[in-house]
Amino acid sequence: MVLLDGKTTSAAIKQQIAKQVEELVANGEKRPHLVAILVGDNGASKTYVAAKEKACGEVGFNSTVLRLPEETTEAELLKEVDRLNHDDDVDGFIVQLPLPKHINEQRIIEAVDPSKDVDGFHPVNVGKLSLGLPTFVSATPFGIMELLKAYNIDTKGKHCVVLGRSNIVGRPMANLLSQKGNPGDCTVTICHSRTQDIASYTRSADIIVAALGVPEFLKGDMVKDGAVIVDVGITRVPDETRPKGYRIVGDVAFDEVAPKASYITPVPGGVGPMTIVSLMKNTLQAAQWRKQAE
Amino acid sequence: MVLLDGKTTSAAIKQQIAKQVEELVANGEKRPHLVAILVGDNGASKTYVAAKEKACGEVGFNSTVLRLPEETTEAELLKEVDRLNHDDDVDGFIVQLPLPKHINEQRIIEAVDPSKDVDGFHPVNVGKLSLGLPTFVSATPFGIMELLKAYNIDTKGKHCVVLGRSNIVGRPMANLLSQKGNPGDCTVTICHSRTQDIASYTRSADIIVAALGVPEFLKGDMVKDGAVIVDVGITRVPDETRPKGYRIVGDVAFDEVAPKASYITPVPGGVGPMTIVSLMKNTLQAAQWRKQAE
Repeated sequence: MVLLDGKTTSAAIKQQIAKQVEELVANGEKRPHLVAILVGDNGASKTYVAAKEKACGEVGFNSTVLRLPEETTEAELLKEVDRLNHDDDVDGFIVQLPLPKHINEQRIIEAVDPSKDVDGFHPVNVGKLSLGLPTFVSATPFGIMELLKAYNIDTKGKHCVVLGRSNIVGRPMANLLSQKGNPGDCTVTICHSRTQDIASYTRSADIIVAALGVPEFLKGDMVKDGAVIVDVGITRVPDETRPKGYRIVGDVAFDEVAPKASYITPVPGGVGPMTIVSLMKNTLQAAQWRKQAE
Repeated sequence: MVLLDGKTTSAAIKQQIAKQVEELVANGEKRPHLVAILVGDNGASKTYVAAKEKACGEVGFNSTVLRLPEETTEAELLKEVDRLNHDDDVDGFIVQLPLPKHINEQRIIEAVDPSKDVDGFHPVNVGKLSLGLPTFVSATPFGIMELLKAYNIDTKGKHCVVLGRSNIVGRPMANLLSQKGNPGDCTVTICHSRTQDIASYTRSADIIVAALGVPEFLKGDMVKDGAVIVDVGITRVPDETRPKGYRIVGDVAFDEVAPKASYITPVPGGVGPMTIVSLMKNTLQAAQWRKQAE
């Protein structure tokens, strides 16, 4: 069994990005600039945004975090989005989800200029992904594709079972893995809460991407020997023995599944760091496309 | 075995549309207007456009066919598209594909105003489909969903195998059938030219959508008893005994598969007429959305 080490892989990709940024700067160009909008006081969101800010520093990007109060209105947030759309110094920006209940998330997502939408959430970017056109692939699926690539995992003709049909992980993952290319060319089955007898699908899978958000859902008897296991789950489970009072648990029962797997991602240290570095890749790409469009 | 009769079903839907159009007109509103651009001299394209024009007449739409010569340049075609985008009398329009080789199809598709893109080919509409948002669903997948609905076929939790990953049929079909709703909530497997042992997937399928474009690909021994079979194939096979010199063959070996199926579409007379009537539904929808946006 080989660990799909997202920490080491993402560190190597960060080094590559940092090198490209220094080349840009040496050529007299500006550093890519990523802005994150954080509305309200969600603990997990604050953690994610801090991790993104840290990564920006490591690769040499400029970064800004706009912290807006919980009571920000939709109109005020739309105004910020519009300002960032028109700010030539900003290459890409994200609006950290979830937003407070009184704000229509989809309206905000669709207000972001697709050319600065480094989360890849705007419908036009989702559509381009589905069509196999160049675009910002949303960070988690992008990170998983990069991780499979880094470990030279042969996906062609393999049966991949994706657990979960969310718009930000399961569905784009199914679209990417079924497209021509490498990684890609998989026969993909998408399972979800309505699937009858999920184990009957996972047991025949060469590759499993678990993104249901159910801690330790995938047990040892649900996978075949030699399967490749990608665990997207990241649930905080209360744990008094930990300093923070919780531990992070994936969708895979690691101790049972790992001995059967050929490759498996740990949680944490697997998909998580790949997600963050993929946002950096998208931001660099945004800066490059903006430059080309000048 | 029950025939999924696209001819009868589409005729009933056409009657509903015609009734809605007469109500619009009685209220002093204009008839929906669909324009088709036909470039060059492709035989199949001419047949399709003629069928669409005929359907417009049957439901009471205004229709226009712009016939442009094979040697039309991309710039000239873009100019036509731009003109239609801004023509307030036009509710929706399609550019019949394929286009001559010297024209970049994707560039044309992306030039169409998404609010008039009744084929649902623009990336923003493809993205909205993937996200489960209201949009123009491209006509073939839309027609298949309507046919399943018309026959009250229970799809929830069923295993659906989609053969083919094209952008206009296989991929949107997989996205629609795996979404929440009815029809929908299927566990979907998408198979394609790189799939190893396709029969191992089709044999466990409750529903099969065959859209590979390979005549009589799906044989009797590849389906289980009671499966629902949707045949999207429409290949012209030379046949001297027919007046036109060819016959239309689907992707399903009908004579072998039909006795095992619970429901099956004939070819012709199954998916084809549903596709055309779905374009009419999209055009009526375009007119309604335009009216709401006024």
